[in-house]
Amino acid sequence: MPPSIECTPVTGSCPAQTFHARDLTITRSMALKPFTDPRTMTGSTTDHMLKVTWSNSTGWGVPEIVPYAPLALDPTATVLHYANECFEGMKAYRNKRTGKIQVFRPDLNAKRLNMSADRIALPSFDNDEFVALLCAFVAVEERWLAWSGNSTILEYDENDFLYLRPMMIGTTPRLGLAKPNDAMFLIIATKFSSWHTRPLRLLASSPEESVRAWPGGFGFAKVGANYGPTLQYQTRAVSLGYDQVLWLFDVEKRYVTEAGGANFFVVWRTEDGGVELVTAPLETGTVLDGVTRRSVIELVRERLPEVSVTERQFTVGEIVAAVDSRRIIEAFACGTAYFIAPVAEIGISGRDVTIPLKVEGKSGEYARTIRRWLEEIMYGEIDHAWGVAVN
Amino acid sequence: MPPSIECTPVTGSCPAQTFHARDLTITRSMALKPFTDPRTMTGSTTDHMLKVTWSNSTGWGVPEIVPYAPLALDPTATVLHYANECFEGMKAYRNKRTGKIQVFRPDLNAKRLNMSADRIALPSFDNDEFVALLCAFVAVEERWLAWSGNSTILEYDENDFLYLRPMMIGTTPRLGLAKPNDAMFLIIATKFSSWHTRPLRLLASSPEESVRAWPGGFGFAKVGANYGPTLQYQTRAVSLGYDQVLWLFDVEKRYVTEAGGANFFVVWRTEDGGVELVTAPLETGTVLDGVTRRSVIELVRERLPEVSVTERQFTVGEIVAAVDSRRIIEAFACGTAYFIAPVAEIGISGRDVTIPLKVEGKSGEYARTIRRWLEEIMYGEIDHAWGVAVN
Repeated sequence: MPPSIECTPVTGSCPAQTFHARDLTITRSMALKPFTDPRTMTGSTTDHMLKVTWSNSTGWGVPEIVPYAPLALDPTATVLHYANECFEGMKAYRNKRTGKIQVFRPDLNAKRLNMSADRIALPSFDNDEFVALLCAFVAVEERWLAWSGNSTILEYDENDFLYLRPMMIGTTPRLGLAKPNDAMFLIIATKFSSWHTRPLRLLASSPEESVRAWPGGFGFAKVGANYGPTLQYQTRAVSLGYDQVLWLFDVEKRYVTEAGGANFFVVWRTEDGGVELVTAPLETGTVLDGVTRRSVIELVRERLPEVSVTERQFTVGEIVAAVDSRRIIEAFACGTAYFIAPVAEIGISGRDVTIPLKVEGKSGEYARTIRRWLEEIMYGEIDHAWGVAVN
Repeated sequence: MPPSIECTPVTGSCPAQTFHARDLTITRSMALKPFTDPRTMTGSTTDHMLKVTWSNSTGWGVPEIVPYAPLALDPTATVLHYANECFEGMKAYRNKRTGKIQVFRPDLNAKRLNMSADRIALPSFDNDEFVALLCAFVAVEERWLAWSGNSTILEYDENDFLYLRPMMIGTTPRLGLAKPNDAMFLIIATKFSSWHTRPLRLLASSPEESVRAWPGGFGFAKVGANYGPTLQYQTRAVSLGYDQVLWLFDVEKRYVTEAGGANFFVVWRTEDGGVELVTAPLETGTVLDGVTRRSVIELVRERLPEVSVTERQFTVGEIVAAVDSRRIIEAFACGTAYFIAPVAEIGISGRDVTIPLKVEGKSGEYARTIRRWLEEIMYGEIDHAWGVAVN
């Protein structure tokens, strides 16, 4: 990480290149929010938020955990005009054996948020300090994953989790379009109860009409600019009875990229009889380097050597061909929010193509297996380096 | 404009499909900001802001002009995560003959903001009501274009203007990605003194590295998502001594699209000896339908019949060929912020190509003429339908 502006270390006037967890101050809320049944608490934010401000001249300030509250932003703040915003999606879980709270591969989110921030000219920070602040914040919000005995919830579900949203926004009050001189890093959290959605119905997009991302663009970065512009097409897909858009790229080739805001995998039998797990590659810059995506690839490569795991450009035509020749095995979307979400059907050029769901009509077998592997790690049923205790 | 949700007109429970200027309330600031020399007031906001909120269930609320103040936004507000934001750039001028304040073609900005809002799933409104609210707001801020005698400014420049920023943001406090259920429409203003920048040095982008917009994307809409992601490349261009990026599209063809956040025109002598004014077409969906762009095209078609005005895809290679064969006449960027900005040089694949500036080394002759035509209309030196008095 190069310094963002010239500085003179000798005089001590260097802007701070990162925030430091050792500087963290905590002001606890005097009015904790009442719990309600987490299964109905879709999106209730927790009691606190973590906040650090940055300016181009002084660098990162002191991180503070304060009671959750609205942000006061000048109407000219760059984030409201020029989409200087990036974020991460993560989850915190109660380890089912130790009772400690843990997060999943936070180092990968730290790296990706730095990469996203760079793509939209927001400042960088140290990855380890990010992880340390995240853990400190989750520890403060521990009561939201109440352990039996301490809980004021009538029915505590051991599969509850906190959805964590680290985010960075440009806050300079200036309409002139330029790299922001001021920014804010925040971590907020919402409480959810684990849910199993019904298998997804996807609508393959028409690349003539709408394209999510482009080489040389920013589809690989978790920036706000990738999301708002998808809602027009997404709204249309929902009105047609689908859950999410399967985003295609290239009017002629019709490459499969992402499903909604999630990565997308297909399992099929290849022409030569092998089993292939395929997903779009990162090199085109049009799909997100998902933490769940990467974990799926690594686990399957490690534990299912008979499956060939391939990151390559593949087309919606290949899916249709695999369905028609009965080589299709299953398909699923994956991401932090959707976890491992089996796909039941894909609308392709007016035809609804059925994807097998061999496990009780709810999931494919690979999706079910991979989901269990990940749950075991996330909820600490087994010891694994990817599960990182917060305290 | 179709209703955004089902409603029953009979019961009177329809959400309001537009805001209405007749409902406007005005709360004047009791602490007006001190004037300083407008030539140094780059970006000082005025005393008030216009605000209307929208919700999916009740539609548009009552517009109000209130003292300028920070917005209180929940940290989960969709605009901070998913770039649900669009805006317009406009200017208000003091008519040099009548002393009245006027705006320039506000109907076009109204239409475009509606189009932009639709592209990112924000609500629509009535164009005429937009213009009426805009005029009411500018009238309240009249003192910022103080007429001689009323001014507390030592030196009032008759070329001062107010930069107006109508904007819309999604405000629903919800991390789940979906069409916002709540939005806010605002108009704010900043005071500027007319400035003449030095002729621009542009750096032609490398489409292998960075692409501003693509077919099926949203380059045609004035949405935040088009701006933040350009800053990384723009910052690099400035560090190399250029003012703005000349955005190219297509790795092989290298079509010229926009210059920074402005439209781009070239004037050259064609192979057959005619004079052509050329700019990128709107059909590809990758350039903004600029109000200044459209005005330039219409004025030149009307007043300079000997010039062939062409909206078509053209390449940076054509520019190099025109320079090398001395057919190049001039080039300029245009937009509300940059007005008509002559181009002096374009960095193309490591070579700085020089563009003629026949008028005192500061502008081409067409750019100078077009600029004067527009100034005459904007500052009311002549009567013209494009100049709309605000009261």
